[in-house]
Amino acid sequence: MTFEPDGKTVSGSPRTLLDFALLGNVALRGECGGVGICGKCKVQIVKLYGTINGPTEKEKKHLSEKEIEEGYRLACQAKIDEGKATVYIPPESRTGKREISSAGLDEYIEPDSSVKKINSVLKKTTFEDIRTDYDRLCGKLSCSSKTEVSLKILEKLPELLRKSDWNVTAAICKNRIISLEKGDTCDKIFGIAVDIGSSKVICHLVNLITGETVERANSENPQVMFGEDIVSRITYASKEPENLKKLQRLVIDTINSLIDTVCKNGGVLHENIYELVFVGNSVMHHLFLGITPKYIGVAPFIPAVGNLISFQAKELGVNINEEGFITAVPLIGGFIGSDAVANLLITKIYETDEVSLVIDIGTNTEILLGNSKGIMACSTPSGPSFEGAHISSGMKAVSGAIESVKIEENDVTFTTIDNAKPKGICGSGIIDLVACMYNAGIITRTGKFKDKSNPRIKEGEKSPEYIIAEGKYTENGKDITITEKDINEFLLAKGSIRSGWKILHEKYGIDPMNVDKVYLAGSFGTHVNIENAITLGIIPGIDRKNIVFAGETAVGGAKIALKSLFERDKLEKILKEVEYIELSVESSFSSQYLKSIPITGA
Amino acid sequence: MTFEPDGKTVSGSPRTLLDFALLGNVALRGECGGVGICGKCKVQIVKLYGTINGPTEKEKKHLSEKEIEEGYRLACQAKIDEGKATVYIPPESRTGKREISSAGLDEYIEPDSSVKKINSVLKKTTFEDIRTDYDRLCGKLSCSSKTEVSLKILEKLPELLRKSDWNVTAAICKNRIISLEKGDTCDKIFGIAVDIGSSKVICHLVNLITGETVERANSENPQVMFGEDIVSRITYASKEPENLKKLQRLVIDTINSLIDTVCKNGGVLHENIYELVFVGNSVMHHLFLGITPKYIGVAPFIPAVGNLISFQAKELGVNINEEGFITAVPLIGGFIGSDAVANLLITKIYETDEVSLVIDIGTNTEILLGNSKGIMACSTPSGPSFEGAHISSGMKAVSGAIESVKIEENDVTFTTIDNAKPKGICGSGIIDLVACMYNAGIITRTGKFKDKSNPRIKEGEKSPEYIIAEGKYTENGKDITITEKDINEFLLAKGSIRSGWKILHEKYGIDPMNVDKVYLAGSFGTHVNIENAITLGIIPGIDRKNIVFAGETAVGGAKIALKSLFERDKLEKILKEVEYIELSVESSFSSQYLKSIPITGA
Repeated sequence: MTFEPDGKTVSGSPRTLLDFALLGNVALRGECGGVGICGKCKVQIVKLYGTINGPTEKEKKHLSEKEIEEGYRLACQAKIDEGKATVYIPPESRTGKREISSAGLDEYIEPDSSVKKINSVLKKTTFEDIRTDYDRLCGKLSCSSKTEVSLKILEKLPELLRKSDWNVTAAICKNRIISLEKGDTCDKIFGIAVDIGSSKVICHLVNLITGETVERANSENPQVMFGEDIVSRITYASKEPENLKKLQRLVIDTINSLIDTVCKNGGVLHENIYELVFVGNSVMHHLFLGITPKYIGVAPFIPAVGNLISFQAKELGVNINEEGFITAVPLIGGFIGSDAVANLLITKIYETDEVSLVIDIGTNTEILLGNSKGIMACSTPSGPSFEGAHISSGMKAVSGAIESVKIEENDVTFTTIDNAKPKGICGSGIIDLVACMYNAGIITRTGKFKDKSNPRIKEGEKSPEYIIAEGKYTENGKDITITEKDINEFLLAKGSIRSGWKILHEKYGIDPMNVDKVYLAGSFGTHVNIENAITLGIIPGIDRKNIVFAGETAVGGAKIALKSLFERDKLEKILKEVEYIELSVESSFSSQYLKSIPITGA
Repeated sequence: MTFEPDGKTVSGSPRTLLDFALLGNVALRGECGGVGICGKCKVQIVKLYGTINGPTEKEKKHLSEKEIEEGYRLACQAKIDEGKATVYIPPESRTGKREISSAGLDEYIEPDSSVKKINSVLKKTTFEDIRTDYDRLCGKLSCSSKTEVSLKILEKLPELLRKSDWNVTAAICKNRIISLEKGDTCDKIFGIAVDIGSSKVICHLVNLITGETVERANSENPQVMFGEDIVSRITYASKEPENLKKLQRLVIDTINSLIDTVCKNGGVLHENIYELVFVGNSVMHHLFLGITPKYIGVAPFIPAVGNLISFQAKELGVNINEEGFITAVPLIGGFIGSDAVANLLITKIYETDEVSLVIDIGTNTEILLGNSKGIMACSTPSGPSFEGAHISSGMKAVSGAIESVKIEENDVTFTTIDNAKPKGICGSGIIDLVACMYNAGIITRTGKFKDKSNPRIKEGEKSPEYIIAEGKYTENGKDITITEKDINEFLLAKGSIRSGWKILHEKYGIDPMNVDKVYLAGSFGTHVNIENAITLGIIPGIDRKNIVFAGETAVGGAKIALKSLFERDKLEKILKEVEYIELSVESSFSSQYLKSIPITGA
């Protein structure tokens, strides 16, 4: 049983889908205890191999006919007798924070990891064969004389060979024996993919033989204690070497604890994890490596290193096999980190003749445009308004945030994360809100209130405010509102994104409406209402079927690099050809920016 | 001013040779305070470029006419006005332990070390050139994209580049940037050569640009606390892992303290030492690396590893540049360690068509035979009698040991180390003694006393004893004597050596008298009286001019491997072709051994 969008797979023989969800600790609501009364455990059967009971009477009370037609069920009522199913949990049925899947885009990679294992039973020593233990091993492994080996392995070599009755398995990575294990352990090769986000660290445990994702875990990036945004972390880290060490320690500890979790849940030993591949923006990348991000923060924004680099995990104290490696996915530039490179790996826009646009919205929005013949990249400082900051009622996409909005006849309806009482509005909600306000004629294209006598517009402390949710419905009893200043802040951000891809298209020589595909990458993109995003001009309005949600691209990209040396090598070659466009030195930037701010901007 | 046999060079402008010796801390006697009265500071001028005063009246009192003719002087009287000289200090003029030189055999190597330095002034960052710091560096160093770099260097890269105004020097070793230094430090590339002997650790600091040996230091191997001989160290180390760690720690600490000494005396920074190359017998090699020597101690005597291996110095905590390397010269087998391989490097018998025999006498005697067409090697357990053990009056070659003996008309004359009152007899003395006793008809070819009524033969506690030094002349007032049992012990040892090279010659298909050269390697060989060694059959009696003292081969060989990658690579190729002969499984060994024991044995 696979639950989307988390991609969590649960096996066993429970009776109902809700039982499966409970067994697998899947974030599915079920407030009546599974007796079919609350109707909160609504799910959609996406794929089914096997047999399932028909809708019960209880379900018919909670589901519309159209929903039943579309495969919606109450998880507590639906019973799979045998077989497999993929079940989609709609946002309103989820508990906890919003989680998104990588849309499985990394799953189609042929495993070809950097670590290979060879089991061999060596010949015992005799006077006729007096080769050293190590030569005996190398002879059997058919490794070249240039194969390197660590001192740690040589130290345990003589006793290990004799205690295992000369039957050992060697793990070889980058022409180096990195592990030597008793008996045959060829079926145990695992890796870790990590996305070091500035607010969240995501860790996936991958079986490098099958390519399967065994376990997932994530937690907040504790560096937020020293600054929510990247700039304040750069400032803090640059102040003293001790600060840099502190931020580094925090993220290493977080990763170690996530590794503990996925190992425990997956029943995998730390020593059977031989490589960790990570992505992150340039600053997260540097902080993890213990390199000052100071010069990423000042013009011309230069990272210390951006290549694909590998080093021993023990150099950072990351808790995998003691001779295992950590590999950094390359950066493109100071503001286009390896999280954006992960978008390349996931979308593979370099493999097709179709021209694709990839947009990853965040405080900085990374934009890629191109195809197999060439790729351009830029980054644009879209500011934190998409994360709810600098907006009077703004908040992060956590429980209680208004995440989608509809306005019909000046009647505002909305959904919140976890269906909790609204506390504020997050980025996806703001996009819907502004687009709907424009469509409903409440605001002008420059974001000004058209008619201040609108019953939902009240005089706020400093200026007029449009009421999204009245105080009687909200968590703290106060109105959730939006001001002209908020809308302006948001339009500046979207103007920045729009001018980024506009200039890229101009330099590439293609009309935005002529691109073959638009990918919305990253966790934010997944929750955006496409029509509203097009209305606002955040993305080009091409044929909707060619607009793709790429999902949790960052960790997915890390997994591709982890699983496949072939893809990793290909990436390195492609990155050499990626053309980085520094928008701030483009002569057309300011005029394009100004044109991009209004809602129906150019 | 170079003083031999230590090879110590002293510069400056003192007045007398004794002043030079004092300045350079050279072990030269001078008991009257340099006023020409004691006559103990006798030295021989070997080479002279410049002018020197003629012999003074005081010198004429202490030196014979023949000595003056041969260039002997009293160091306190001889004054070099200007120029250079090489001065030989004869054994009787030395203080302290016997020291031997490497006969300079390593000095003719073209420096071609594993470490290269490149200084470059990088272009500063601009919006037009936004390459990362690392790409900027690599571009300037013209190193390939596959050049590796440690995280430690990346950590300091951004600040270092900017603080040094973009002028830096990189040290590159094995396709890896191992050091990055402010400004131009291309003239500072140093290495350390170490001979880890079971009783003495020798450390030379080498300038890897000029090839010159900058400083030398040595100290006792403190592992002797846990067993004088190799076997007891194997036993101790095999008992518990903690013991192995303890022995390892001792030798690492010793090496670190020797490095401190040579750095201080040579005015060289630890961080400018980028490689340490060491030799040692297989057990010393394993103990230093922290690998159990247990299986070298039991048949079929297999080391864990014998290849040329390199690893980072910090893995062992050896105090050179933090990213510097330690390289182990390869072993040939359990009983032919890298100290014996050093003999190959020094004698280069693999480079000529002449067939050479190399003998390195010790508790185990390593023997090499061959030429450019092929080399055979064996080791023979000659026992500790050459080191004075198992001989009733035997002692090590330290102050007070009888080191040479002459017998004329039953009158025994001898010299002792440091000219001290005799305390016992060391290996070189025993060789002289037994040969002379045989030549004088005192013993038979099987080492039995011929005529027990000889006035120097007295009835000892258990058996008759031949008096070497009467009690009135000795340190403790007791006679220094030798028994038939002592002589037998010695003959067994020399029989073992002789049978080793006899079998090697047999298998190689050459008559021992037809070899072109015989090298006596190692510290013991240097002090042997060749005529007496031939009389006893320890070495073949070929033309004396073809018998060569190879000197302090072990550290010399390490220096060749340190200074030259070319020689190192050549060595690896040659070692693959060296044929190891395990004597104990040779069918002819026992009969050859029995024949080799008597003095004029076959």
